[in-house]
Parts: sequence; structure tokens; C-alpha cells
Amino acid sequence: MNKSDIQLAEACTEAMRINDDASKLLGITITETRPHFAIAQMTVIKEMTNGHDICHGGVIFTLADSAFAYASNSTNHTTVASGCSIEFLAPAKIGDTLTSVATKRARSQRTGVYDIDVTNQRNELIAVFRGKSYQIRGQVIPEAGEQS
Amino acid sequence: MNKSDIQLAEACTEAMRINDDASKLLGITITETRPHFAIAQMTVIKEMTNGHDICHGGVIFTLADSAFAYASNSTNHTTVASGCSIEFLAPAKIGDTLTSVATKRARSQRTGVYDIDVTNQRNELIAVFRGKSYQIRGQVIPEAGEQS
Amino acid sequence: MNKSDIQLAEACTEAMRINDDASKLLGITITETRPHFAIAQMTVIKEMTNGHDICHGGVIFTLADSAFAYASNSTNHTTVASGCSIEFLAPAKIGDTLTSVATKRARSQRTGVYDIDVTNQRNELIAVFRGKSYQIRGQVIPEAGEQS
Amino acid sequence: MNKSDIQLAEACTEAMRINDDASKLLGITITETRPHFAIAQMTVIKEMTNGHDICHGGVIFTLADSAFAYASNSTNHTTVASGCSIEFLAPAKIGDTLTSVATKRARSQRTGVYDIDVTNQRNELIAVFRGKSYQIRGQVIPEAGEQS
Repeated sequence: MNKSDIQLAEACTEAMRINDDASKLLGITITETRPHFAIAQMTVIKEMTNGHDICHGGVIFTLADSAFAYASNSTNHTTVASGCSIEFLAPAKIGDTLTSVATKRARSQRTGVYDIDVTNQRNELIAVFRGKSYQIRGQVIPEAGEQS
Repeated sequence: MNKSDIQLAEACTEAMRINDDASKLLGITITETRPHFAIAQMTVIKEMTNGHDICHGGVIFTLADSAFAYASNSTNHTTVASGCSIEFLAPAKIGDTLTSVATKRARSQRTGVYDIDVTNQRNELIAVFRGKSYQIRGQVIPEAGEQS
Repeated sequence: MNKSDIQLAEACTEAMRINDDASKLLGITITETRPHFAIAQMTVIKEMTNGHDICHGGVIFTLADSAFAYASNSTNHTTVASGCSIEFLAPAKIGDTLTSVATKRARSQRTGVYDIDVTNQRNELIAVFRGKSYQIRGQVIPEAGEQS
Repeated sequence: MNKSDIQLAEACTEAMRINDDASKLLGITITETRPHFAIAQMTVIKEMTNGHDICHGGVIFTLADSAFAYASNSTNHTTVASGCSIEFLAPAKIGDTLTSVATKRARSQRTGVYDIDVTNQRNELIAVFRGKSYQIRGQVIPEAGEQS
């Protein structure tokens, strides 16, 4: 992985962030992006809890899905999620800081598989997420000359 | 299904709603609950879009997950999600009203499987979601004497 | 659905069956095919059991996957599985006759989602399976002129 | 991990193998077992191919599911699969030797999550499998005094 690949990944992240209102709504920040790799973080607040008074599974999913999105779009080919699965392993509570790390397991011309782990500030595994990506037409940042 | 079962389901929904801040944050409303069945609705607004300018997959997941939660807690046995999978079939856009309908496929003493379909206002299928539930100790509303 | 669509589906099934050695090995028979629909059946014998003396989950998966394959190839566009999930709901025992019914939930140009239910002779639900299909180049039967 | 844990895992494997007729039918061998870890291997033969003349997805699933079963039963608590998902990444062909490696991602009192990767003899990733386990009553080998 050379420096220009990392710079491209970071530029894709910057471009996507501007319009990523859903991640902003939940206070999700992308702390690192590299080719096919991203880290997203979020602190659980009361607004994210569900009827059982723990973090809503959908919010944990959204955190993992965001890391997945930035990782799968990091080479400047517009990519969407075709499907995802998540296993909830431990509850997340108000005040917990969750970190989700997305790594590539496989990527062909069109489709890819990424694994995203979500841990808390004590490094306990909160959820495991597996995302299937699908590359569509278009680029994340228009000026890039990179081809798949 | 008799009237008291429906009343119990509706009472569970009322009790859970009070603390369900995440659903409130996203404007999710539960429009119907019956035993092992629930309907949740949401209108897509700009705050729910992602870097591709369509509704964030995590928000669609959260809508489906909410219907799943109300359906799986509808008989007053506290139940959490152990895992979920979602397939994204078509994008949802700003202004779309999404409806998610949760139905039971199976439920044993401890575990259950629910299918949740998400459609838009033109009845187009946006996503299919399958949730695995796990019944833990406790009741949604303390006073109920109902047993499974 | 007109008669020629059903005939095409049946012709695709006949062509695939000839080389489907894995289904033959397990005694799986395709009892019906229509466009995006198929039924596969199998009787559990001792050779299909696992170390817990019940039908191996992989064998139940294979039955469901076969119904999925015949349903997703029924319009004469060569289609493969990109991914599948299965939930095991009840064990299957020696002598049980299992029926798996595959129906289409969604299909776009390239990708599709099919649901496959597996039941036993008492109509008890043994497993639910969800298959993601991916259409590749080629036709199941070369002579067909039908286009999607 | 001490020696007696490995010996217990190997003893569980020996006990399960005797009745594992489905794995025998497909020529699956368990080449290694340790606590929450197992490796299963299989060579693809013509009897395992499907109507597209590649290894039937159900057979690949069965190989992965077998590694999962031996890994999740390796501490002598009888454990079954509650659900599994598999992503097919590359086809397997006649003559290929497939290796599936099962590792634990999480395990609580009752439930667990294991990841199983399937590779071929060129170390190419053929499939990724995620299995959810459920611990039921009973032990794999009756004489063991080990408790969870």
C-alpha cells in the first residue's frame, strides 16, 4: 500500500463525509481510512437507547455500516451495500465509546465482503458485522483518474 | 388471537415506547402491534441520508429492527435481538415513507425468527430483514400475569 | 405466468438435473419448477446424520440450496448463489421426508433474493433459508431465445 | 490452553466422528481439533458437482459446517447450530482440495459465534462462513467431569 493509495482513500472519506448526514446525526466520526479499511467511532448517548434502556441495535448497526461504507468506497469506485448481517454479542450502554473496524475479506470486480468488528472502550466485542458490497457506476471523487 | 392478547401486545408497545429514544430520534412510529406482529413507519428526511445522498442503510435497518423489537416483545416476555440480516433491494430517498411489517416465522421457548419487509409508499420492496430473537428473564410490563 | 414460461422453467430443470451429481448423491428430487419457483424433496437416511444422530445441517442446507438453484435458473439465465443464510428451527430425523419450497422475493437485472422454507412430513418448519443470487453470462439451455 | 484441554477436544472429535455419517459420505476429514478450533478437509469429486459443473454450494457449506460443529463441541458441552451464513467467493472444481478452518469469535453461556474460512490448495478464499451455536443439555463424551 503506497502513500497515494492512502491519500486517495482519505480524499474519498472527506468527500463522502460532507453529505453523510446520518452519521453526523449519530455523532459517528471516521477516525482512519486506508484502502479497503476504515475505523468509525461513536459514544452512546441517551438518544440512542431503546425500550430496554440499552443502545438500539440499529444504532450499533449504523456505526458498523458506516465503517463498511468508508472502507468499501476507499478506492474511489462508488460502492453500495447489497446486504449485511450482524450478531449482537453484548449490550452497549450510555457513555460507552464504540469503535468499529472494517477490513476487506474479498473483493472481485463487482462484489466484495467486509468484516466489521464493534468493540467498546474495554475492548469487549459488542457485535460482529459482515457486509456484502456491490460496485456501481461512478466515482466518489470526480477528478480521480484511477480505474478498477 | 383473542382480544386480551391484542391488548397485551398494545400495552407492551406503550411501555417500550416511553424509553425508545432511538426510534423517536428517527421519527419512527409503531402504528400497529398484535401478538408477534408489528408495523413501524418512518419518513426519510435529509438527516437520514448518507454520503451517496440516499437513505443510510443503518436507518433502514433501524426501522426494521424496531418493528422486530415490538413484534418479539408483544407477548410480554423480554426479548432481545441476537442477530439480524438485511438485504437492500432498492434505495430510499428523501420524502419516501417507509413501512416495515414484522411477522413471526418461528418461536420456541428461547429463540425466534421474524421476517420484516420494508416497503415504500408505492409498495416497492426496499429491503428484507430477518431477525433472530432471544428471550431473556423479565417482562415488558411488570404487572402482567400472562405466560407463554 | 403463461404456459411457455412454465415449459421453459421445466426445460431448464431437466438440463441442470443431468449434471447435478450432488443432488443425486443425496437423493434430492425436484418435484416442480415454475418461473422463479421450485420444490425439492429428500428423505433423511442414516448416511445424512451427524455426530449428534440427527440430519447434518449441511444436508438440510443442500436441499434448500438445490430448490434455490432451480428456482433462480428457471428463466434460462445462468445464475449462481452469491451467499445464503439458514436458520435451523427443529431437527430432522432418519425417515423424515423434507420438502423445500423456493420463492422469489426480489430480482433485478443481476441480483436476486429467494426465500426457501424447509418443512417435514408433518408440515413442521425445519429451517428457513434465504439465498442471494447473481446472474452471470450464459444460458441454461443454449437454444432458448428468451430474454429477461 | 493446556494439554488436557487439547486432549478433551480431541476426545470429543473422536466420539462425534463415529456417528458422523454425513461427513463420511462426503469424504470430510477432521485434521485438527483444539478448544473452540477445528480444521476440516475434503477433495472435490464429480459426485459433489452441481448443474453448473462446479462444486455444489451445499457441499462447501457442509465442509464448513463440519469444522464449525467440531470446534463448537470441543469443550464437551453438546452444542448445535442455530443458524449459519455463507458467502461464496470463488468456485471449487473437481480435484480441488478444500480446507476449512473454524475459529471462535465469541461464546457466552449458551450461544456462540464462529468464523469458518474455506480455502483451496492454492490458498485462494472459496467461501466465508459464520456460524451461530447454541449449547443444549448434555456432553459429547459422558465420562468427562468438565463444567463450563
